[in-house]
Amino acid sequence: MLVSRDVQRDNSVVRVGEAAFGDGSFPVIAGPCAVESEDQLMACARAIADSGGQLLRGGAFKPRTSPYDFQGLGEEGLKLLALARDRYGLAIVTEVMSENEIPLVAAYADLMQVGARNMQNYGLLRALGKAGKPVLLKRGLSATLKEWLSAAEYILANGNPDVILCERGIRSFDSHTRNVLDIAAVPAMQEMTHLPVIVDPSHATGRRSLIAPLARAAVAVGADGLLVECHPDPDNAWSDGAQSLNLNQFREMMLQLPCRILKA
Amino acid sequence: MLVSRDVQRDNSVVRVGEAAFGDGSFPVIAGPCAVESEDQLMACARAIADSGGQLLRGGAFKPRTSPYDFQGLGEEGLKLLALARDRYGLAIVTEVMSENEIPLVAAYADLMQVGARNMQNYGLLRALGKAGKPVLLKRGLSATLKEWLSAAEYILANGNPDVILCERGIRSFDSHTRNVLDIAAVPAMQEMTHLPVIVDPSHATGRRSLIAPLARAAVAVGADGLLVECHPDPDNAWSDGAQSLNLNQFREMMLQLPCRILKA
Amino acid sequence: MLVSRDVQRDNSVVRVGEAAFGDGSFPVIAGPCAVESEDQLMACARAIADSGGQLLRGGAFKPRTSPYDFQGLGEEGLKLLALARDRYGLAIVTEVMSENEIPLVAAYADLMQVGARNMQNYGLLRALGKAGKPVLLKRGLSATLKEWLSAAEYILANGNPDVILCERGIRSFDSHTRNVLDIAAVPAMQEMTHLPVIVDPSHATGRRSLIAPLARAAVAVGADGLLVECHPDPDNAWSDGAQSLNLNQFREMMLQLPCRILKA
Amino acid sequence: MLVSRDVQRDNSVVRVGEAAFGDGSFPVIAGPCAVESEDQLMACARAIADSGGQLLRGGAFKPRTSPYDFQGLGEEGLKLLALARDRYGLAIVTEVMSENEIPLVAAYADLMQVGARNMQNYGLLRALGKAGKPVLLKRGLSATLKEWLSAAEYILANGNPDVILCERGIRSFDSHTRNVLDIAAVPAMQEMTHLPVIVDPSHATGRRSLIAPLARAAVAVGADGLLVECHPDPDNAWSDGAQSLNLNQFREMMLQLPCRILKA
Repeated sequence: MLVSRDVQRDNSVVRVGEAAFGDGSFPVIAGPCAVESEDQLMACARAIADSGGQLLRGGAFKPRTSPYDFQGLGEEGLKLLALARDRYGLAIVTEVMSENEIPLVAAYADLMQVGARNMQNYGLLRALGKAGKPVLLKRGLSATLKEWLSAAEYILANGNPDVILCERGIRSFDSHTRNVLDIAAVPAMQEMTHLPVIVDPSHATGRRSLIAPLARAAVAVGADGLLVECHPDPDNAWSDGAQSLNLNQFREMMLQLPCRILKA
Repeated sequence: MLVSRDVQRDNSVVRVGEAAFGDGSFPVIAGPCAVESEDQLMACARAIADSGGQLLRGGAFKPRTSPYDFQGLGEEGLKLLALARDRYGLAIVTEVMSENEIPLVAAYADLMQVGARNMQNYGLLRALGKAGKPVLLKRGLSATLKEWLSAAEYILANGNPDVILCERGIRSFDSHTRNVLDIAAVPAMQEMTHLPVIVDPSHATGRRSLIAPLARAAVAVGADGLLVECHPDPDNAWSDGAQSLNLNQFREMMLQLPCRILKA
Repeated sequence: MLVSRDVQRDNSVVRVGEAAFGDGSFPVIAGPCAVESEDQLMACARAIADSGGQLLRGGAFKPRTSPYDFQGLGEEGLKLLALARDRYGLAIVTEVMSENEIPLVAAYADLMQVGARNMQNYGLLRALGKAGKPVLLKRGLSATLKEWLSAAEYILANGNPDVILCERGIRSFDSHTRNVLDIAAVPAMQEMTHLPVIVDPSHATGRRSLIAPLARAAVAVGADGLLVECHPDPDNAWSDGAQSLNLNQFREMMLQLPCRILKA
Repeated sequence: MLVSRDVQRDNSVVRVGEAAFGDGSFPVIAGPCAVESEDQLMACARAIADSGGQLLRGGAFKPRTSPYDFQGLGEEGLKLLALARDRYGLAIVTEVMSENEIPLVAAYADLMQVGARNMQNYGLLRALGKAGKPVLLKRGLSATLKEWLSAAEYILANGNPDVILCERGIRSFDSHTRNVLDIAAVPAMQEMTHLPVIVDPSHATGRRSLIAPLARAAVAVGADGLLVECHPDPDNAWSDGAQSLNLNQFREMMLQLPCRILKA
């Protein structure tokens, strides 16, 4: 398989804007679950840029369990993300849910996210192999490491070597946390593949108070970056408020990441 | 939600060819994992028709974990399915993996299958809401009952009331069987929704010897039908051979289903 | 292993009172979660005997998650069970939680139950190997089939061939039901071992409405018996009320078990 | 509940020999899965003492899945542990599997371990509440955080406040690692209880190469200590060799733990 360390011994370095994933640095992606408004997004972007984060995430097309939940602002959301990039110099990460939306999303995004529910949407993966943009591939809710690697292989086999893997928690029997962060998946995947592996403690736990400790653990375990949700007013977020840091909490978390301090 | 028993107390009856799902009968869908050749498919179709099965399944577009595994015969496979329908009077069930393939698949299939990996591919679900064909919605590998219902709601909310739900096993910690058949999901879902619920013991267990006992259990628990894999030569099947009945085993299983005998 | 079909091809038949597990019949064990009072227990026993059930279960020593929950009536409960046996001719099944309680429990019980939490309490298993009474070994909450077989082996290897296995649901990610009944474990275990395998749909689902359909499925799949909870007034049960049938529901369920009707 | 932060806001500090769990330090428990011989144990003890570890673990009574596997050296193993304590000044941790073995084990051990399989062996927990020695309570294979807390409560409610909790991985669907280390359980438990929480990456992963990264993550997440398996010759260990560090790997791991370096 193209993703295998047997094929390429050295780490792949995936560059997105000024960030590099896989070179020993620890880029931080942050932002709200969904783009809600210009004010909300710009407040996040400013805090991220000020704290040393390098990428802004925000959903414009949202995969929601219920068809009656807020489905995202669509292209309006993408335009706000592009505006934030222009103002704050952050690269843009946003989810693409369908092959047919790839051209639209690729026109705005620097890094195209495949959500956990779509990890084995093979039509989408094949099309992203040809889309000319780096891809952030989240682990499926109950995907084995081998299935996750094979999903990445669909993208590489179709011509795109720039894939970042994101561990975001797996399903378990305990509802205390939303999912269980499989932190051992980071070094286990790094043994098998040369692709960078980052950690998302927000979706993994669904609990604000656990994000900072898990972000520190992600650094310690050797992850290639971090993805966290933040929001200027989590209690009134349209989605995922319980797992979003407010902007002060986000700044405090950033100060706890040793490699970030060193680079600042 | 439109799928709820609170909205509609009586069972929905979904008609596909001459079969009716949800009227108290127990239609049987059978066939190979993948369409491989005319000989293979016609041998299955003949055995199914002779044994009282009403629908023929077979994959033409296959969702495979690895991009290097056989991906299906594509339209050639669909044509063979249509030929089998003409010869043996069986309705055709086949998987559709992508919104863009819906027109092609709908031109041949009587029942459009959404696989477990695509249960939350919302673009696909929305498009199937408008495709004018009944849909067989498999439960995701680790989908809760509520997530599964919500996935069906995407189809109904987009205009298509003809959805059949299929329990096909969930992920667990024991690799003795491929998955764990959640047989209680059948009555549990029937309490919550008016949609028919069928059982697939082949994917649930991955073991040929367990299929007949589980098929009998599906009848006993009150399922609205059955989906099983069969193949004229399972040991040489291109995929899923270990969980396919050979045609004699299929006939024997059919004889063990009490309601089938009564109707014959 | 002594439990293996390779060692003994024919089914083991475990006799408890007048019931036989493993001879093709389908004995029914029923009763309350915990023995609460003489009135409660005798009402259950009468309904069970009248409906064709053969064994009365009831906890006198209860394994409770919290140390502050009701822990059982102890020997007082055992005496009430013995009284019910005398009055209604039912064999007695009750849980033993500790090696040190074996002599006391064995003085009253006909079948000694090992609960799911103690499936790998090896001291207890070894001691039950020498206790001279049949053992009902429940599957652990997340025990693989091989671990379950090995737990039974501890009992056989210490001299006791009379072990009945009980599938009672395994842990999963969906809280809709308390556990997931792994119905395929019944034929899968029967392939590997000559020991009888019964089904407990009460603990498996935690939902009263699902018990009768699953009991029918247990017959259909080929189980060697059934264990269900019933109570004269489930809404006021001291434990497990939500998963207990009332006595009318119990009688109705018994009428739905085809083999029971045939034998009556 | 006595274990709750609502009852006691400040951390409990559990002292074992010269180590303190819960005071902000990070004591390391290490040693072989099972005590095999004097040479093996003394080699481990020397390496642990030299590297700054404070406690020696080793099984004398082993809970083995099969009754035919090595069950431990029994009291002979306990004597070797006591000898190592005398020679190297390390406190001794060993498992107790049965109430009846408590007096024997307590005569040698400084910290009494309850294994994952016995987490809900309530007779054992109650007896350890009265045994006058600190207890190391491992999380059950599929125990929820609340069940784990309730198990600890059994010990405190019976008079023993000195309980250390140990996260050691939970069951999941992926066999790539033996279990999944639920690293978020550490801060999640610390929010709910004042008891110290340590991490065991050896049993969590079953893979030697993942232990050092996870040990670093345990420090970073705020765990109160570490338990790892080491062996002078893992490839010839009588049990758990695949997850044991050799003594050089153990020393290297110790050098990667920042708090250890500071204290050295």
